[in-house]
Parts: sequence; C-alpha cells; structure tokens
Amino acid sequence: MVKVGVNGYGTIGKRVADAILKNPRFQLVGIVKYNPDYSSKIAFKKGINIYVPQDKWRDFESTGITPKGTIQEFLEESSIIIDASPNGKGAANLSLYKGAGKPAIFQGGEKPEVAELSYSTYCNYDEAFGRKYLRVVSCNTTGILRVLCALHREFNVKRARVLVIRRGADPKEDARGPINSIKLESFEDVSHHGKDAMLVLPSVKIISQAVVVPTTLMHVQYLDIDVASPVTRSQVIEALSKHARILLVNPKKTGIDSTSKLIEAARDFLRSRNDIYENIVFENTIIVSDNNISLIQAIHQESIVVPENMDALYAIANIRLPFEKVVEETDRLLGVGGLKDVF
Amino acid sequence: MVKVGVNGYGTIGKRVADAILKNPRFQLVGIVKYNPDYSSKIAFKKGINIYVPQDKWRDFESTGITPKGTIQEFLEESSIIIDASPNGKGAANLSLYKGAGKPAIFQGGEKPEVAELSYSTYCNYDEAFGRKYLRVVSCNTTGILRVLCALHREFNVKRARVLVIRRGADPKEDARGPINSIKLESFEDVSHHGKDAMLVLPSVKIISQAVVVPTTLMHVQYLDIDVASPVTRSQVIEALSKHARILLVNPKKTGIDSTSKLIEAARDFLRSRNDIYENIVFENTIIVSDNNISLIQAIHQESIVVPENMDALYAIANIRLPFEKVVEETDRLLGVGGLKDVF
Repeated sequence: MVKVGVNGYGTIGKRVADAILKNPRFQLVGIVKYNPDYSSKIAFKKGINIYVPQDKWRDFESTGITPKGTIQEFLEESSIIIDASPNGKGAANLSLYKGAGKPAIFQGGEKPEVAELSYSTYCNYDEAFGRKYLRVVSCNTTGILRVLCALHREFNVKRARVLVIRRGADPKEDARGPINSIKLESFEDVSHHGKDAMLVLPSVKIISQAVVVPTTLMHVQYLDIDVASPVTRSQVIEALSKHARILLVNPKKTGIDSTSKLIEAARDFLRSRNDIYENIVFENTIIVSDNNISLIQAIHQESIVVPENMDALYAIANIRLPFEKVVEETDRLLGVGGLKDVF
Repeated sequence: MVKVGVNGYGTIGKRVADAILKNPRFQLVGIVKYNPDYSSKIAFKKGINIYVPQDKWRDFESTGITPKGTIQEFLEESSIIIDASPNGKGAANLSLYKGAGKPAIFQGGEKPEVAELSYSTYCNYDEAFGRKYLRVVSCNTTGILRVLCALHREFNVKRARVLVIRRGADPKEDARGPINSIKLESFEDVSHHGKDAMLVLPSVKIISQAVVVPTTLMHVQYLDIDVASPVTRSQVIEALSKHARILLVNPKKTGIDSTSKLIEAARDFLRSRNDIYENIVFENTIIVSDNNISLIQAIHQESIVVPENMDALYAIANIRLPFEKVVEETDRLLGVGGLKDVF
C-alpha cells in the first residue's frame, strides 16, 4: 500500500481522504489540521490520524483531540502528499515537500507554476505518469475539460467558448455572497478557466467568461464548441455517453431540470455528502449544427475533482496500469456513474 | 392630445401610465383595475382615473376608491389602449378592443398572433407605422433585439446565439423561486426569446437558451453574434454607443460589476422605482474576433420595454414624425441615457 498524506481538510481534503480510505492500493497516513474545529473532531472520531503544527499541539489536546504527530512526522511518514490547503497556500508548502523529497498533488487554486503539469484525467493522464508534482485543475476547468476531451478524442475540437454561471459560495460558507445579484467574476475580458484549460489542452482555442449567482449547490456551464468536421447529435450523445464521468439527464423524462433537484437526487441516492462526481449534461440542451456543438451542464464544485485526484495518485505513485483500468477502478470505488440507473 | 387608456396596472402598466403622464402629446384616460389592492389606492391618490368591472364597483368604493367608470366607459373614452394585463389575458381582451373599434398595443407575454406585428423600435419602427394592433416583445427579447439591430444596421448580422440568465422573480413576487438553484427555463432545446426575436428580425438566425437564477433585480444575457465581415472592437463599441438605449459600463472605472450595484446606481440617480431603461453592456466583456462579437449585458426586466411602448404609441397614433425624432422624444421625456454621465 502506498502511504498518502492529505495536507488540509477543507472541501476537497476531506473528500479525498475518504476516497483514499476506500481504495486498498493506498493507505491514508492522516491529515494535517491547523485548528481544532468541528471537522477535526469528526475526523478524530472517525479514527483518522491528525497531524498538527508543534505549537498548536496543546490547543488540540485541550479540545479532546490527541494528535498523531507533527507536520514534520506527517511528511516523513507519507510517500505522497495531496495538498488540499487553501488557495495559494500550496505554493508555500511546495518547499516543505521538496525538502522532505516527497511528490505532491496540488489543487487548481494554486498557480500552474506550482507543479510540473496541470492535469485532467480525460485529457493528459499519460503525460502525468511518473511526474513528481501535479496540479489537478479546478472544479469548473475539470468540468469543461472532461467534455472537451471526450469530444476531442472523437471529433477533433478546434475552438470552445464557455460561459460559467458560478455558484456564489459553498454550502458551509455563510459569509460569502452574492445574496441577490448577478455579478461578473472579474473586471477582465475573460475568466481563468479557459486559460487554465488550454494548459491541459493546448491545441484548442478556449475562451471563457464567468458570472456569479446567489446559489450554493452547483455551477452551471454553457459550452459552445466547434469541431473539425460536421457531426450529428446522436454521434455527440454517443461520444459523451461512453464516459462514466459525464452523465446525460433528460429533464422531460426525469423531471430533473435544476441544480437543487440534482442535489436532492444525490441525497436520495445516499451519495456521501450528496456528492456528484459526474458532469451532469442536460440532454435537451444539446444543440448540434454542422460542426458546432453546444450544451448546458451542471458541475458539483465540492466533489467533481475527487476522481481526478485519485487518478493522479496512480500516476504519481507509478502504479503501472493502463489509463482505462485506472479510471475504471477509481470510478468503481467511488460509485461514479451509479446515478445513471436512476436518470 | 391622443387619449390613451392602460388596461392592467402591474409591473408594465404602472410604468407605462407614468410615462404617458410625462408626455404632452398623450392624455392618460385612466387605468383598468380588477381588484382594489394597494396599487389601486396609490394610483387613486395620485389622481389617476380608475375604471373597474361593473360587478367590482362596490369593492372599490368600500376601500375608499371612487371609480371613474366601467370598462365599457374606459373603452369608449380611450382612442388607443395599451394592454398590460397578465400574460395571456391580452388575447382575451382583443375582442373587446375590436368590438369598440380601438387600436391596441399588447405586451410580449401574449402570443404573436394577438397583433399584426411583433415590434421593437430599433428594428422595425417603420413597419409599425399606421398599424392597428402591435405587440411589444418581452423584456429579454427587447434587450436582445436592441443590440442585434444596432449592430445589424452597421455590420449585417448573420447569426446570434444567446444565453439568458433570467432573474427568478420580480421584487414584489414573494411567492416565486428559485431560492437556491440554477434551473433550466424549459424542457425544450431552446427558449422562446430567439424565436420571438426572429419574428422581428427574420433575416438573422437567432437561437436562445435560458436558465433561471435566485435573484430579483435584473436579467443577464450572453450574446454571441456573427456578422458578415470582420470588424474591430472599437467599431463595435462605436456602433453600440450611438444608441441612447444601450449604455456601456466599464467595471474597472466605475466599480459597477453586478446587477445589484446597477440598481443601487439607479436608486442614487433618483430614477423612479430605480428603473433602468437602458441595456447595460459590461464593456470589459466585449470580445471581438474577426466577424464574431460577444458581450454580456444586464437587462432591467421591469422597465426595459417602457420606451418601446411609448414609441409604439406614436406609430399607432399616426403621429407623423421621423423615427429618430420619436426615439429622441421618448428618451428625453423618460431621461433615457442620463445615467451615461455617471458611468
């Protein structure tokens, strides 16, 4: 078993830690926590080892949490680190990992320079193999790239325009807005998602823009894609349906036409934390005309990158398996695609 | 003075009634109300004549409102009717207007067949001239058509794709959602806006889709437009800036990057009911590449059609003025474009 440590236990870290616990190839060394908050307590009660900064040891003990060790010990005991610390902190951690000689996987909130490769499974798994530092691109970029690469493989994508309708905050983030507004994500002409996607898929011209809306559940994306030659709608549906991480939902048949109903379905399906690992493409919105494809999809910002983090572990751990086998194993252990039966 | 009656006193009716009061060419005969609610009382206190169904007369009197007359009298005293009744009720009213021999202007919530012509000032004012029944297209369609026709005039628009990010409800509609969701507007592949816009501008292929979000203030639209030949960004900005009903806002310079800040600006500017009659195009979002133009704009759903209703009155009343003069007069009386000085 490959020993993996998770540095940070927020939205992504806690989900990746749970995913590691489900995978017999990997052993969860433990997590690093900087404050003894409720999530530390829940992790401790679940039996997850908690590593803390030396100077915080007493704070943890005084709230009933016995740390397993210090951050130094965490680094020594882990063979690979998944860095799930807050945006931008990963870059500061890089020197720690380098000092300890440990490979690491970073998240999309970090600048690309933190790693050797910006990564998304459907696009560049083979390039990730054997690298020391990977960066799994952010939730929206992962959602965009899954569709683009699924289509690129079959039809040669030339150009994509993306409008991201971003959720304002995650469910737990009760201090963030907007409360009653539609807001531009930035003062710039484009958002970072397109640029980021092009790091992974440089042969395609990808331009994205983003607005932020008052909801916490999922992002919604509008994709407008040009491919090299004319295609039919059924070819597009077939190409997307081949991939377990892309689920087509027909609103007329299922009644599911919103992010809130998707999350309710995930709750009823007993997905842990109502996570939806799959891109949800609303099937009715797929419009194909000549060599142009457009669609609207929903992306669960909290969990969408979990499968890609797990795949990245295989690559960085040098587990010599073909791409398809890795994806199949990750998906099976997480239950990816299972919702297909009820949609 | 041309005598105009307004049937219905909801979101559009009350604004159009106020606009008529500001215009010396027209006399507001009064409004038709079906229930003596708070808005009837406010109109009554403002001195607006209220016409009611015969069988509701006592209900109005018992709340302290003395009606001016019945609906029959309203029809007799009006030379032109603006129908601002709830979606779909206008079609039922058509036979009343026909029976009384009165021309009428309907709103975009009605089916196109209610009128001889679906109308939007920047696109087909000349065709509206002298007609008996007009239909002013809906708020989103008006917002789309202003931009398309402003560009069409200069560059020959060939094709447009539109994504509408719809506000969930108007500020007063406290029973509507969504509260925490991004929802498809329909189970169909496209929304009605594109089809509706093509009734007005049939030479352009316009396809629209729509999602609904939890906010009440304004719609936001993403437009992706192909024109016949390559253009430059400054040509596009110049073409849009010629039109008082299209305002460009630079978020970096003004700090205004959201619908809530736009509404706050309209409140500070002392616009009545914080109305924004202008399309607000976020200047930073304008991307021009070869013969493709894209932009993001905000549309104030409650008031955007008021100028077009006023222009339609000129056309239907056979007031023989050139198009530019009508638009200038409507805009001056409503203060359209005034916000330009502060943006």
